[in-house]
Amino acid sequence: MLSKSQISFIKSLHQKKYRKENGIFIIEGIKSLVEFIPSNYQLHSIYYLAEYKSLLPTLPSNIKLFEVNNAELDKISTLQAPQGILALVNQPKPIPLKPEVLQNCFSLLLDGVQDPGNLGTIIRTADWFGFKNIICSLNTADVYNPKTIQATMGSLPRVNMYYEDLALILPQISVPVYGALLEGESIYKTSFGSEGLLILGNEGQGISAEVINFIEHPVTIPRIGKAESLNVAISAGIFCSEMSRNII
Amino acid sequence: MLSKSQISFIKSLHQKKYRKENGIFIIEGIKSLVEFIPSNYQLHSIYYLAEYKSLLPTLPSNIKLFEVNNAELDKISTLQAPQGILALVNQPKPIPLKPEVLQNCFSLLLDGVQDPGNLGTIIRTADWFGFKNIICSLNTADVYNPKTIQATMGSLPRVNMYYEDLALILPQISVPVYGALLEGESIYKTSFGSEGLLILGNEGQGISAEVINFIEHPVTIPRIGKAESLNVAISAGIFCSEMSRNII
Repeated sequence: MLSKSQISFIKSLHQKKYRKENGIFIIEGIKSLVEFIPSNYQLHSIYYLAEYKSLLPTLPSNIKLFEVNNAELDKISTLQAPQGILALVNQPKPIPLKPEVLQNCFSLLLDGVQDPGNLGTIIRTADWFGFKNIICSLNTADVYNPKTIQATMGSLPRVNMYYEDLALILPQISVPVYGALLEGESIYKTSFGSEGLLILGNEGQGISAEVINFIEHPVTIPRIGKAESLNVAISAGIFCSEMSRNII
Repeated sequence: MLSKSQISFIKSLHQKKYRKENGIFIIEGIKSLVEFIPSNYQLHSIYYLAEYKSLLPTLPSNIKLFEVNNAELDKISTLQAPQGILALVNQPKPIPLKPEVLQNCFSLLLDGVQDPGNLGTIIRTADWFGFKNIICSLNTADVYNPKTIQATMGSLPRVNMYYEDLALILPQISVPVYGALLEGESIYKTSFGSEGLLILGNEGQGISAEVINFIEHPVTIPRIGKAESLNVAISAGIFCSEMSRNII
């Protein structure tokens, strides 16, 4: 049984303002929970339906557990079809980017990706290809948005997210900087080598004028048909695959 | 000014049942409209805010036009932020698949893709790569779902959609049949040649047991990191790119 104030606290975390104020975000579903438990993230509390209790893994003793009923879960869940288990997770202290972590690997830089679902799907895709670092401009969607978390499908604990002022960070980058553009060298002809940073832009506007100057290698996914553009997460997937093909 | 019955008719089209019953679906935004006007689809009617009137292209005289106010558009729109123009489009008569259209090109077969957004993104991606035909199992998401239409970003008129009983269709296919699976030949080592059909499965369950037997070439996107799976639209994008790389 949850108190009114517990319910209203968790509901407040559906909004970015209160997630930021409290340094807490929501994850849902057993699959997501088991990815976060062994990670560096600190769990705050877990809310579960009685019939899901047996699914709960062994937990550190400092995590508060609350059995809830369907009506309560419906209230606190961010999903239309809640998944029986919801947890609050403490937001880690933002990690400042050390440019040397980008060496000897491939990384993504997102310049204003707006859609939380796209951001989450990009994180999941990066995790599939073993990309460990994603740099986001300050106006990129919130990684702790419930739609982002849902779309990551549990991959977030394995990918380091950096929110940075790109004008300050980009001059410090020493690995090759690629930009996903409509005009550029075909990805099928580009030698990506063994390290690099790929910049992907906003869904409607592409890469911003201030960032475009830092691109050393404009690269493009050749268009054969007539679509005006590709979804940014689809582009990210195709680029991750191309960058990975010679290193496996 | 719309009548109550007009509003309730258009609102009913938010649901699959009434879209099917009336053979009509909704598109929104000027970009989508300009893709449908020159296509084989027949427009039924257009609803626009006064300030969008000047954007309307020349239209055949049989299309009914209605100027609406913001409150009316909010009611009939499927979007949280309506885009000033909404149109009703007649659903074309379903095209029966002739297996020979699959020759000398690449095509997709979706076996139970559930999420309308994924379906729409796959259509947009297929259009980018010039894939003209997508076969869908009967339990695949509705192509006329507003979320599907939105995610296609205007690509639907250029891609032929077939909803078929796969058990009847698959035995008739004469091009190589590839299946996107977690185990199979690496896409980086597969020679896709110049024609083929790629099967993609449901988001959670993958390709169904009845369909899996028809796969001649199990193929996989090698996993380097730890994500459990890739989003199905991301997989589709990577496969479309791989199949296209030697034909451009």
